Amino acid sequence: MNILLLNGPNLNLLGRREPHIYGHRSFEDYLPELQADFPDLTLTSFQSNHEGALLDRLHAAAGWGDAGSESASQAVVLNAGGLTHTSVALGDAVAAVAGAGLPVIEVHLSNLAGREEFRHVSYIGKHCVGSIAGFGLESYRLALHYLLSQRPRPVGFGRR
Amino acid sequence: MNILLLNGPNLNLLGRREPHIYGHRSFEDYLPELQADFPDLTLTSFQSNHEGALLDRLHAAAGWGDAGSESASQAVVLNAGGLTHTSVALGDAVAAVAGAGLPVIEVHLSNLAGREEFRHVSYIGKHCVGSIAGFGLESYRLALHYLLSQRPRPVGFGRR
Amino acid sequence: MNILLLNGPNLNLLGRREPHIYGHRSFEDYLPELQADFPDLTLTSFQSNHEGALLDRLHAAAGWGDAGSESASQAVVLNAGGLTHTSVALGDAVAAVAGAGLPVIEVHLSNLAGREEFRHVSYIGKHCVGSIAGFGLESYRLALHYLLSQRPRPVGFGRR
Amino acid sequence: MNILLLNGPNLNLLGRREPHIYGHRSFEDYLPELQADFPDLTLTSFQSNHEGALLDRLHAAAGWGDAGSESASQAVVLNAGGLTHTSVALGDAVAAVAGAGLPVIEVHLSNLAGREEFRHVSYIGKHCVGSIAGFGLESYRLALHYLLSQRPRPVGFGRR
Amino acid sequence: MNILLLNGPNLNLLGRREPHIYGHRSFEDYLPELQADFPDLTLTSFQSNHEGALLDRLHAAAGWGDAGSESASQAVVLNAGGLTHTSVALGDAVAAVAGAGLPVIEVHLSNLAGREEFRHVSYIGKHCVGSIAGFGLESYRLALHYLLSQRPRPVGFGRR
Amino acid sequence: MNILLLNGPNLNLLGRREPHIYGHRSFEDYLPELQADFPDLTLTSFQSNHEGALLDRLHAAAGWGDAGSESASQAVVLNAGGLTHTSVALGDAVAAVAGAGLPVIEVHLSNLAGREEFRHVSYIGKHCVGSIAGFGLESYRLALHYLLSQRPRPVGFGRR
Amino acid sequence: MNILLLNGPNLNLLGRREPHIYGHRSFEDYLPELQADFPDLTLTSFQSNHEGALLDRLHAAAGWGDAGSESASQAVVLNAGGLTHTSVALGDAVAAVAGAGLPVIEVHLSNLAGREEFRHVSYIGKHCVGSIAGFGLESYRLALHYLLSQRPRPVGFGRR
Amino acid sequence: MNILLLNGPNLNLLGRREPHIYGHRSFEDYLPELQADFPDLTLTSFQSNHEGALLDRLHAAAGWGDAGSESASQAVVLNAGGLTHTSVALGDAVAAVAGAGLPVIEVHLSNLAGREEFRHVSYIGKHCVGSIAGFGLESYRLALHYLLSQRPRPVGFGRR
Amino acid sequence: MNILLLNGPNLNLLGRREPHIYGHRSFEDYLPELQADFPDLTLTSFQSNHEGALLDRLHAAAGWGDAGSESASQAVVLNAGGLTHTSVALGDAVAAVAGAGLPVIEVHLSNLAGREEFRHVSYIGKHCVGSIAGFGLESYRLALHYLLSQRPRPVGFGRR
Amino acid sequence: MNILLLNGPNLNLLGRREPHIYGHRSFEDYLPELQADFPDLTLTSFQSNHEGALLDRLHAAAGWGDAGSESASQAVVLNAGGLTHTSVALGDAVAAVAGAGLPVIEVHLSNLAGREEFRHVSYIGKHCVGSIAGFGLESYRLALHYLLSQRPRPVGFGRR
Amino acid sequence: MNILLLNGPNLNLLGRREPHIYGHRSFEDYLPELQADFPDLTLTSFQSNHEGALLDRLHAAAGWGDAGSESASQAVVLNAGGLTHTSVALGDAVAAVAGAGLPVIEVHLSNLAGREEFRHVSYIGKHCVGSIAGFGLESYRLALHYLLSQRPRPVGFGRR
Amino acid sequence: MNILLLNGPNLNLLGRREPHIYGHRSFEDYLPELQADFPDLTLTSFQSNHEGALLDRLHAAAGWGDAGSESASQAVVLNAGGLTHTSVALGDAVAAVAGAGLPVIEVHLSNLAGREEFRHVSYIGKHCVGSIAGFGLESYRLALHYLLSQRPRPVGFGRR
Repeated sequence: MNILLLNGPNLNLLGRREPHIYGHRSFEDYLPELQADFPDLTLTSFQSNHEGALLDRLHAAAGWGDAGSESASQAVVLNAGGLTHTSVALGDAVAAVAGAGLPVIEVHLSNLAGREEFRHVSYIGKHCVGSIAGFGLESYRLALHYLLSQRPRPVGFGRR
Repeated sequence: MNILLLNGPNLNLLGRREPHIYGHRSFEDYLPELQADFPDLTLTSFQSNHEGALLDRLHAAAGWGDAGSESASQAVVLNAGGLTHTSVALGDAVAAVAGAGLPVIEVHLSNLAGREEFRHVSYIGKHCVGSIAGFGLESYRLALHYLLSQRPRPVGFGRR
Repeated sequence: MNILLLNGPNLNLLGRREPHIYGHRSFEDYLPELQADFPDLTLTSFQSNHEGALLDRLHAAAGWGDAGSESASQAVVLNAGGLTHTSVALGDAVAAVAGAGLPVIEVHLSNLAGREEFRHVSYIGKHCVGSIAGFGLESYRLALHYLLSQRPRPVGFGRR
Repeated sequence: MNILLLNGPNLNLLGRREPHIYGHRSFEDYLPELQADFPDLTLTSFQSNHEGALLDRLHAAAGWGDAGSESASQAVVLNAGGLTHTSVALGDAVAAVAGAGLPVIEVHLSNLAGREEFRHVSYIGKHCVGSIAGFGLESYRLALHYLLSQRPRPVGFGRR
Repeated sequence: MNILLLNGPNLNLLGRREPHIYGHRSFEDYLPELQADFPDLTLTSFQSNHEGALLDRLHAAAGWGDAGSESASQAVVLNAGGLTHTSVALGDAVAAVAGAGLPVIEVHLSNLAGREEFRHVSYIGKHCVGSIAGFGLESYRLALHYLLSQRPRPVGFGRR
Repeated sequence: MNILLLNGPNLNLLGRREPHIYGHRSFEDYLPELQADFPDLTLTSFQSNHEGALLDRLHAAAGWGDAGSESASQAVVLNAGGLTHTSVALGDAVAAVAGAGLPVIEVHLSNLAGREEFRHVSYIGKHCVGSIAGFGLESYRLALHYLLSQRPRPVGFGRR
Repeated sequence: MNILLLNGPNLNLLGRREPHIYGHRSFEDYLPELQADFPDLTLTSFQSNHEGALLDRLHAAAGWGDAGSESASQAVVLNAGGLTHTSVALGDAVAAVAGAGLPVIEVHLSNLAGREEFRHVSYIGKHCVGSIAGFGLESYRLALHYLLSQRPRPVGFGRR
Repeated sequence: MNILLLNGPNLNLLGRREPHIYGHRSFEDYLPELQADFPDLTLTSFQSNHEGALLDRLHAAAGWGDAGSESASQAVVLNAGGLTHTSVALGDAVAAVAGAGLPVIEVHLSNLAGREEFRHVSYIGKHCVGSIAGFGLESYRLALHYLLSQRPRPVGFGRR
Repeated sequence: MNILLLNGPNLNLLGRREPHIYGHRSFEDYLPELQADFPDLTLTSFQSNHEGALLDRLHAAAGWGDAGSESASQAVVLNAGGLTHTSVALGDAVAAVAGAGLPVIEVHLSNLAGREEFRHVSYIGKHCVGSIAGFGLESYRLALHYLLSQRPRPVGFGRR
Repeated sequence: MNILLLNGPNLNLLGRREPHIYGHRSFEDYLPELQADFPDLTLTSFQSNHEGALLDRLHAAAGWGDAGSESASQAVVLNAGGLTHTSVALGDAVAAVAGAGLPVIEVHLSNLAGREEFRHVSYIGKHCVGSIAGFGLESYRLALHYLLSQRPRPVGFGRR
Repeated sequence: MNILLLNGPNLNLLGRREPHIYGHRSFEDYLPELQADFPDLTLTSFQSNHEGALLDRLHAAAGWGDAGSESASQAVVLNAGGLTHTSVALGDAVAAVAGAGLPVIEVHLSNLAGREEFRHVSYIGKHCVGSIAGFGLESYRLALHYLLSQRPRPVGFGRR
Repeated sequence: MNILLLNGPNLNLLGRREPHIYGHRSFEDYLPELQADFPDLTLTSFQSNHEGALLDRLHAAAGWGDAGSESASQAVVLNAGGLTHTSVALGDAVAAVAGAGLPVIEVHLSNLAGREEFRHVSYIGKHCVGSIAGFGLESYRLALHYLLSQRPRPVGFGRR
C-alpha cells in the first residue's frame, strides 16, 4: 500500500523553526523511523512551499500526472500548513482525488483549536476522511495506524 | 496507566442510531476488543446524557471526586457529543483538569468539518492535547495509540 | 396511539410563573381535559428541568430505554423551553428518533417570533415534522389534532 | 365567523409545483373539504402573486377597503409564501389590522426550520397570534381549529 | 412648479391605522390644506400598495410614461413606506429619475431612528436630495418649504 | 423553439435611463435585430415593473397560466433587475418552473460584481442554468447562442 | 420661544472647508438671515469642537447649567457632526433633556445616506423628535419651520 | 432574611482548580466566615454541576419546590459559572423568580471583561438586580452588603 | 487611603435626569454620607463631561499630573458613563495607571446587561480590578467596601 | 485577433474529475473544435496550477513578459478556478492589464450561485468586462461570441 | 518648512507609562534631538488629551484658527493615540485640512497590527498621505525624512 | 549589513502598471539610486509572482536555504503585494524568520487605509517590526532609514 505524505508551506523548516512549538526534529529525520514502524506500508514524502506543486503532486497521486500510474498512491496524509485555511484550489483538488477513490487524511502538528481564529477554518477538511491535530509528528503516525487498520481499502466515515 | 473513555449525550445510541452514519456497533461491544488490543492500559468507560454527570466524572478523574483517588485516571479520551459545541462549563472543567496535569484528548466519530456550521465551534478543543475526528470508533483507538506512545506522561503539544 | 408530551425546563412553573404571559393554568390541570378531548390517543406527560433526563426519556420513547418498548410512543409533542435555542444534544436526539421513525412535533406556548433574537434560533426544529407556536396550551391541542388526522402513521411534510 | 384564507405568491401552483414537497392537491380542491369540516365558520379564500393585491385585501378584511365592511373578516389565516421573508410592507399591514382587532395566524406548508437560512426570518410573525408550519395543507386546518376554539374572539397569546 | 407627492404601501390607512402613532388625519384631508399653504406649487398625489404602480408613476413623473410629459413633475416628495427598506427596484428608479434631473425628497411620518433595526436601512436615500423623518404629516410640509426655496431648480446637496 | 425574454423593473427605461451605463438603445429597438439573428428561435418579450406580473408570466411560460399551453415556452431568458437581489418569491417561481423542466438563464446588462454589495446577492441564480452579466444587450444574445446550441433540450450544467 | 442652534465638531469651518460639498457660506453669515426670517423665534447659536462643551451647553439649555434658567431654551436644533456616529454620551444627554421636556431636532448638512457606512449609525436620532438631512444650511431652516408650526409646545411624533 | 448562595458548574473545585486565578480557598471554608460577618442574614449554600438541579433549587427558593415555603429565600446570590453564557433556561428561571418578587444578584469570581469573548454574553444578567465581577470570593460579600442595606426589601435598580 | 471617585459625562445630572431610573439624589448630596460611613478612607470626587479632563485627572491620580503627588490616590472608583462604551483613550489611560500600580474599579448605576446592545461593550473593564453595576449609588459603596477590605494594597483578581 | 484562454488550478483534470459535474471532455479535446468554429480568432490556451505562472502569463498577454509583444493578446478569457475566490494578487493583475487596455472575461464551468457560500465572492469579477457561469465548456464559446461581435475593440460595459 | 507634531491622548505619559512597551524617553526629551537632526524643518509640538483641542489645533495648522496664519504649518505628523480608532470628528478634520492642501502623516509608536482587533480600524488613515507604525519614537523621524524629501510640496501618493 | 528587499506579485509591473497610482518608475531603475544613498547597507532585491518562491527566498534569508548562509540577510523589507491580505503561509514564514532573529519590515506603495476593505487585513503585519504605507517608492527608503539607525541590531518595538 503506497502512502503519500504530502507537506505544505514552511514544513521544510521543521526542527529549525520555533522548536519550542514544533520540536527539534526535522521531517527527514523522522521519516525513516516511521517507515520502519510500518513495514507493510510504502511511504513517499513530498514537501513544497508552492501551492501549485502540491496540486500537481496530488493529481499525480491519483494517477493523473504525466508519469501516469507511476507516482499513484492508495492514500494521502496531508499537512497543508497555512494553505489549509486559504486555498480553495487545494480543497477542490482533494475533492477531485477523493471523488476518484483516493482517500486523504488531514493532519496538523499543533492543536489548531488553541490558536488564532483564522486557523479554525479549513477548506480541505470536509473532503477528507478525517482530521488529526495537535500530536506533533505523532499526528502522522496516527494517520498511518488508521490506514493500516483499513486495508485493503480505507473509506470515508460519516462524511456527508 | 488508567484511561477514562468519557462519552457524552446520545452516544449510548451507538449501533442503533442512524447506522449508515455511526455504524452498527455499540460502544459496549467495542470496548472489550479495544481493551484486548491495549493490554498495557486500563480502560474505564462512562457515558451520560447529563452534562452535570460528565462534569462530576471528569472531576473524579482528576482525583477531586468524593471517592478521592479511587476513580482517578492518568488521561481522558473525551467524546462530548453535542455538548462540544455548546458547553462552556465542560470546557472550563477540561481546562481545570488539564491545568492539574490530567491530559484530555478530544475524539469524534464523524468528520465535523463536513457537517453543519455550528459543529465547527468547540469550547473544549483548545484545552485538549489534540483532536481526532472522522474515523468512527477507530478515533478512540488512535487516541490510545498516542497515549501509549507517550508513557509515562503524555503532554500537550504546540498548545498555546 | 401512544403520544408523549415532553416538556422542558421551567414548564413545571406553568400557572405560577408570569401568568399574564403563560396563563393561570398548570399543565397538570390541563392534561386530563386534553386526554378527554382525544379519547383515541393515549397521552403520557413528562417534564424535567434536566436536559439529560429529557434525552433519556426521548430515547425511551423510541424504544431504546432500559424498559425497552414499555415506554415507547408513536409520536412526541415536544416543548423544549429554553433548551430549544441552545441544545445541540437535544437536536441530535430528535434527529436520532425521527430517523428511527418516531415523529416529533415542536410546540411553544408563546409566539417566539415576537420575543428576543436568540429565541429565533432552533436546534430542534429542522428535525421535527413541523412547529406550532403562540397559542398557549392550545398549541398542544393543535399538535394532537394533526397527529389524529395522520393515523395510523404521521409523516414529515416538506422537510428537506 | 368570517375567516379569510389569504395566500401569497406561487401558492396558485399548489398540486402542480414540486409535488414531492407540496403534495398533489390544489388549494381549490382542498377548500370545499375544509369548509365542510368547519360548518360554523365562513371561509373566504384569496390568492395573488402581487404584494399590493395582498395588502389591499388585508386592508379590506379590516373593513378599510372600498367595499366597506362587506369584505371584512373576523380573522385571517395568512400564508405569505416568499413575501414572509422580504416584505416589510406586509408586516406593517399585519400590524395595522392586528392593532385594529383583526387577528392574523401565520401558516406555512413546509417546515421552514429545515430550509434555507433566509427562510428563518419573518417580517410578519411578530405581529401574528402565532405560527403553524410544516404540516402541508393541514396547517390551515390547525389554524381553523384554534380560531373555532377561541370564539367569539380570538386573542393574541404571549405576544410581547 | 408641479410636485408629485408619492405615497407607498399602507399610507392609504393614515388616520385609521394606529392613530396614537400616525395621527387621526387622513392624507386626503391634509392635502387641500397643504395646497392652500403653497399656492405657488401645484400638488399631485398618488398612493399605491403596489411597488410596480409606484415605479410606473415615478417613471411618468420623469416624462417617461405613456402619457408623455403630461404627468411630468419638477420634483417628487416620496414616502415609500415599508418599501424604503426592501426595494432595490424602487431605489434604481429614483436613481434613474434623479439622473434625468428630477429631484426626489425622502419623507417619513415616524422617526425611523427610534424604531426596528431593519428600518435603519434605506435603498432609496442615497439617490435623494435629502431626507426628513419624524414630523408626522408636517414632514411633507417641510419638503415643500425646501422645494419652494430652491426654485426654479432644486438640486442635490452634498450628495456624493 | 419558443423563448421568453422576461424583463423586470426599470428595464422599460432602457435607452433613456443613464445612457452612459445602459446604452442608448431601447429593448424594443433591439428585439427585431435579435430575432433576425436567430431565425430558428421564436422570441417573445415581456416587461413589467410589477413583481406579481412577472410571476404570472413565468407561470404561464410553464403552461400553468389561464391561457394554458398557449403562452408556454421552451426556455426563459430572465433579467429580473432589482428584484434579483430581493425577491424570494421570484426565486421560488424560477425553482418551480425549472423543476417542471423549463430552463431559465439569468442575464444582466451591467457587471454586478463591480457594483454595490447588495447586488452580489441573488435569490434567483441558484435555480437557473447559468448566469451572464456585464455585456449590455449582448448578454441576451449570448443566452440565445447557448439555447440554440442545446437544442432540442437545454439542460442545467453543474448545478447542485 | 428660545431656540438653541447647537453645532458640533468642524462646523466652525463652514464656508472654508470643502466648499463644493458644504457651500461657501459660514454659519455666522447665515444666522442673521435666519433670525430675520423667523422674528417670532429667538435664536441662540453655540459651536464647539469639544464633546464636553456641547454636553455642558445642552444641560444648560434644559436649565441645569450653572447660570440656571438664564440659558434655558424651549427647543434645540442639533448638528452633532462626527459625534453623531460615535458619542453615546451625547445620545444620553439628548435623552436626558428630552425626558425633561426639551425637544431636540437632528439636522445635517449633507445627505448621510449617500456617504460612508459608519455615518448611517446615529446614537442621537432615537432620542430626537425627528431628523432632517441633506439640504445644506436649509436643513436648519426646515427645523425652525417645524418648531414654529408646533407652538407653543413641540412634541415628539411617532417616537417609540 | 434568608439568602441563598447558588453556585453553578465547577465551583465545587474552588481552592483546588487553578489557584493562581481562583485562590486557595474553598467555598466551604469561606462560608462560615461570611455568615459570621453578617449575623442578621441567614445564609444557605447550594452548588451543583447540573443545570437542572440549579433550576430546581431556584424554583424552590421562590417557594415553588416540593417542600413548599420551607426552602424559600428572600434573595439569591447567583454565580452560574459557565452556564452564565449558554443557558437560556437558567435565564428564564431567573426571570420567573424575579417576576415573582425574589431578587437575584449575579456574581463572578473573575473579571469577565478581561477574558474570552464568549464570556461577555450573559443570558442571566438582564433579569438580575445587578452584577458584581472580579473580586474573587469578596464578590459574594459585596452582594450581601447590598442586600443588608436594602432591608426589608431589595428592589431592582434601573433595570429596564 | 485616598480614593478618587471619578464620574464621567452626564453624571452631574444625577437626581435631576430621569429620576425613575437614576433616583432623586444628586452625587453631591450622597458624598458626605458616603464619607461618613467610611471614616478610614479619604474620598475625593471629580466629575466632568470632558473626556480630556477625565484623562488629565486620572493621570494626576497616578502622580503624573502637574501638581505631582499632591492629587495622587491609592485607588480609583470610575463611572465613565457613556464613554465606557466608546473611549479607547480612556481604556488606555486606565491600563496605564493600573500598570503603574493604581487599581481602578468600574461602577455603573444601572444594570447595563438589561439595556441597549452597545452598552454591553466596555473598553475600560478589562483593565479594571472588577466591575459593579446595577445598584444605583450603592454601587459606589460596594466598591469602597472592597477597597477597605483589601488594605493596605488592593490588587487585581483573576485578571488575565 | 489573438485570444488567450487562461485556465487556473485543477482545470487540467477536465474530463477526468467528477465527470457528472464537469463533463467527460478534456479542454485539449475541446480547443480544436472551438478554434474551428471561430476562424477569425487566433486562440492560445494556457493552464497552470500555479498562481504565479498565471500571473506571469497574464502579464505577458499585456506585452509585459520577457518575450515582449510576442505573446501579447487582444483579449483574455479567464477561468481562474478556485483562485477566483481567494487571490487578491490575481485580481490586481486583472486590474493592471485591464487598465492597460486588455479586456478580460470571467468564465466558469459550473453555476457558482448554486454552490458553496465562499464561491459567491470574486476578487476578479469587478475588473472584468463581464462574467459567464454555468454553461460548462460552452461558457468559453459564449465569451468568444462576445469578443467576435465587438471587433476591433472590446470594451467594458457598465463597469463602474 | 513648518511641521506640526500633533500628539493625542496619553502621549504626555511617554517615558512613564508602560516603559517596556513605549520606552523610557518622554517626547519632550526627544523633540530637541529631532529638531537638531532636521535643521531645515521648523518643528512645533502640541499634545492634548482633549479631542476638541486637537481639532482646534489642526484647524489652526490650516490657517483657520483665531491667530490666522500665525500657527499655520506646511505639514502635520499626527499620532492620534486611542482617538485613531474612534473619532469620526478627527477624521473629518483631517479630510478638511488635507482638502485644503495641508498633508497629514499618521504615525504610531507601537505596531497596531499586533494588538487588539479594535486598533485595526482607523478613521484617520484614509485621509492621510500614508502611515508609519511600530518604530517607537523613530516613527516620527521617518515621517520627517519623507517630508524633507518631498520639498517644497509633499503630496499624497496612491490615495484613492 | 545585508538587507533583502523582497517584492511580491505584480511588483514587476512597477512603472508600467497604472502609473497615475504607482508612478512611472520601475523598481530596477530605483534600486541603484537607493543603494547609492545607503552606502553602509548592502541591498539585494528579489521579486516573484510565486508565493512559494517568496517563501523559499525568505527561508534562505534566514540561512535556511540550500545555499546555507550565503544568501542570509540581517533584515528584510517586504512588500508582499496582494499576498499581504490572503497568505497565512507567508505570515507563518515571517513569524518563523522573526522568531529566529531576522527582523522584517512591511512596506506598501499605496495607502491601504484608503482602498478596499479587504486590503485592511494583513496576515503579515503582526509578525513584523512595523509597517510603512502610502509613500510610493519612498516607503522602501524610510524602512532603510530605520534599519540604519538601529545598527548593529534592529529589534521589534512594542510588538505584543
